[in-house]
Amino acid sequence: MASLGCEDIQVNEKGHLLLGGCDAVDLAGEFGTPLYVIDEAAVRRNCRLFRQAFPRVIYASKALMTMAICRLVEEEGLCLDVVSGGELYTALAAGFPPERIYFHGNNKSRDELALALEAGVGQIVVDNFWELELLAGLTEGMGRGADIFLRVTPGIEAHTHEYIKTGQIDSKFGFTLPGGQALQAVKAVADIPGLRLRGLHSHIGSQVFQVQPYAEAAGVLMDFLDEVRENTGLVLEEINLGGGFGIYYVPGDAPLPPAVYGQAVQAVVGEKAREYGLPEPRVAVEPGRSIVGPAGTTLYTVGSIKEITGVRRYVAVDGGMADNIRPALYQARYRAVLANRVYDGPQEVVSITGKCCESGDMLIWDAELPALKPGDLVAVLCTGAYGYSMASNYNRLPRPAMVLVRDGQADRIVRRETYQDLVSHDVMPARLRTGS
Amino acid sequence: MASLGCEDIQVNEKGHLLLGGCDAVDLAGEFGTPLYVIDEAAVRRNCRLFRQAFPRVIYASKALMTMAICRLVEEEGLCLDVVSGGELYTALAAGFPPERIYFHGNNKSRDELALALEAGVGQIVVDNFWELELLAGLTEGMGRGADIFLRVTPGIEAHTHEYIKTGQIDSKFGFTLPGGQALQAVKAVADIPGLRLRGLHSHIGSQVFQVQPYAEAAGVLMDFLDEVRENTGLVLEEINLGGGFGIYYVPGDAPLPPAVYGQAVQAVVGEKAREYGLPEPRVAVEPGRSIVGPAGTTLYTVGSIKEITGVRRYVAVDGGMADNIRPALYQARYRAVLANRVYDGPQEVVSITGKCCESGDMLIWDAELPALKPGDLVAVLCTGAYGYSMASNYNRLPRPAMVLVRDGQADRIVRRETYQDLVSHDVMPARLRTGS
Repeated sequence: MASLGCEDIQVNEKGHLLLGGCDAVDLAGEFGTPLYVIDEAAVRRNCRLFRQAFPRVIYASKALMTMAICRLVEEEGLCLDVVSGGELYTALAAGFPPERIYFHGNNKSRDELALALEAGVGQIVVDNFWELELLAGLTEGMGRGADIFLRVTPGIEAHTHEYIKTGQIDSKFGFTLPGGQALQAVKAVADIPGLRLRGLHSHIGSQVFQVQPYAEAAGVLMDFLDEVRENTGLVLEEINLGGGFGIYYVPGDAPLPPAVYGQAVQAVVGEKAREYGLPEPRVAVEPGRSIVGPAGTTLYTVGSIKEITGVRRYVAVDGGMADNIRPALYQARYRAVLANRVYDGPQEVVSITGKCCESGDMLIWDAELPALKPGDLVAVLCTGAYGYSMASNYNRLPRPAMVLVRDGQADRIVRRETYQDLVSHDVMPARLRTGS
Repeated sequence: MASLGCEDIQVNEKGHLLLGGCDAVDLAGEFGTPLYVIDEAAVRRNCRLFRQAFPRVIYASKALMTMAICRLVEEEGLCLDVVSGGELYTALAAGFPPERIYFHGNNKSRDELALALEAGVGQIVVDNFWELELLAGLTEGMGRGADIFLRVTPGIEAHTHEYIKTGQIDSKFGFTLPGGQALQAVKAVADIPGLRLRGLHSHIGSQVFQVQPYAEAAGVLMDFLDEVRENTGLVLEEINLGGGFGIYYVPGDAPLPPAVYGQAVQAVVGEKAREYGLPEPRVAVEPGRSIVGPAGTTLYTVGSIKEITGVRRYVAVDGGMADNIRPALYQARYRAVLANRVYDGPQEVVSITGKCCESGDMLIWDAELPALKPGDLVAVLCTGAYGYSMASNYNRLPRPAMVLVRDGQADRIVRRETYQDLVSHDVMPARLRTGS
């Protein structure tokens, strides 16, 4: 069983990092830095590993969403998880088939739901009673109605960062299973003519490395499937276990192959289905980070280097928290290599910092790297997920470009922002115009 | 001495929140939500309080930078602190006089420095030796040269969040004072014909509520001024103490009026100047948050409400961590009021969450508010600083509009992003186009 890794890197005869067969130094020369680089083969491989492991795979586009990425996962036969009107709009603009879209979100607006219904989005994952009320109104008198799922909170705690833990009871997401709120929701759906309940959804957290929480969640959902049938006669056809599959960022992270999760979950589902005399529901998952995270690399150029004798050596690069806020936000850790001299052995321990005017703007604390100098090219690995998607214009830094690399070919899939872009939304009221 | 407050709110006869004389409910109706609202009078008042307290006041534009805000602080006679080519570009586009600009940053690129020199930026605050090298190259043969400051790290710890503490020795910023690095930099400047050293800069941190660290920093800089004169004969004309003046977010925050800082610092500077027989240098400060923070309010519309019996009541609004990441990033706390029924007393304790697909997407934990329902308008107070400036398109949420309010008039100063804007930088490689 193959794993979703970015443990291995490729290097050419010049000692330069290779990304999708492209020399990283050439990429930096052609497209500038900072530069997000996405390895197409890695994305496709990860899609396939999940598709081999689960009957239905839904790409969680919040991890990385551009029109080109939508097309890639579409070509690989995945469904798409969108969480906002903006993600839905992007998917539709990329020609993603609406029937393969799952629309998530804890606070979808009426406009967003209307957009989804008009577009013929295949599955709306309903989070709460207010959303049911909105959908009841919107589907009233509509010919075709809508297929929906209910998001439930299973009451399972995954061992992960507090911010990205979502399966526990104290969560803003979903109908709470313990206590009967979820069953109440199932009954409420039955009273709304335009809605057809197809299945259940749960999500236990992010960057999870254990099988057990998924198996447990599957068991809890199967128990509830039985409860739903007993109470309403309804037999649901799909259980969606969400995402959260951990990936390799730094030594110590031990990601499991998708097949391991798949087998464990299918075993529970099969067993419970027999126990309850239920047809086996289709098992769906929503990987995001584990599809694109390991496929992404960010290239930065080294600028100033500051030595504080006996304390630390700071190496500043031309990006930072504006293009990757995860270290500041989650204390996330990354690995880096010197892309223009990969074979030089580690010679010093440095801290890689960004160019934002803020102490928290760090990319990596205490990285072991060759001796760095201005102009060197640093590659931070496994940055495909939640880098670009959370990027800001903090300090009015233009957001980087993104290229898709494959077989030595590099295609720009996101255009770098310009200074002009930064002021393109600014409006100067007449009374503040110079000279007025 | 007046304080920089947002302790007081104004309410009209309908019980609606008033912002710059505008009814918040009307603003939401006209401009939509989420909406950043900036009170012009508050910005101007805070500018004036600082100008009364210090000989030179430099607005730290990273807190909130738009062309209109540049014009406002320009009209108020402030100088401008920019930290990137993007901020500099915005300032110039707004017609801000370049001679009143201070250019900061720990890793300015050659291009950014060239842009600053070409534009005639009045003061470049040099952070490190690499930057001196770049400037030496760029000013060689240039007619007019450049006025520079040196950023030094005074070795003072302010009591604030780890991320926003910058005065300590282990900092990516500036030349370290203890140990002689800063003096070495002064000597290096003397060897570069195109550079004229005008003064020193230090910054001790953010959201600082004590006078003492500023007084200490002023003392340390004065000691160094004497050391500089003794070693080089150079008498520097300005010391810049940076920003970091704390503001009121929640009860317990006790901001001091600018005049209190000003008096304490001037006393130290005066005393040290007499002691050393130095002319009194001009004291400059760089408030950002304390100019715009209290002047800003974010308006949100309530959507779904989730009750978890015995645990928590989540109220979701139509924005969140994408437009204000400070609660997730710094555990920042805010106050909120119900803008459409301000006079209703507190009736429940709720947690205000955003619409992002992430548990960390919280705005306020445990806010005491009237009973809320979908459609209500929540105003989160004192959000003028680092909300918009750090905003992202996470979950592909369009960034909100911003309006400037004064005397009942509201002018849009930032246009709301559209779905079309979100894909405007996406590029679809030919080989991924539908049907290819």
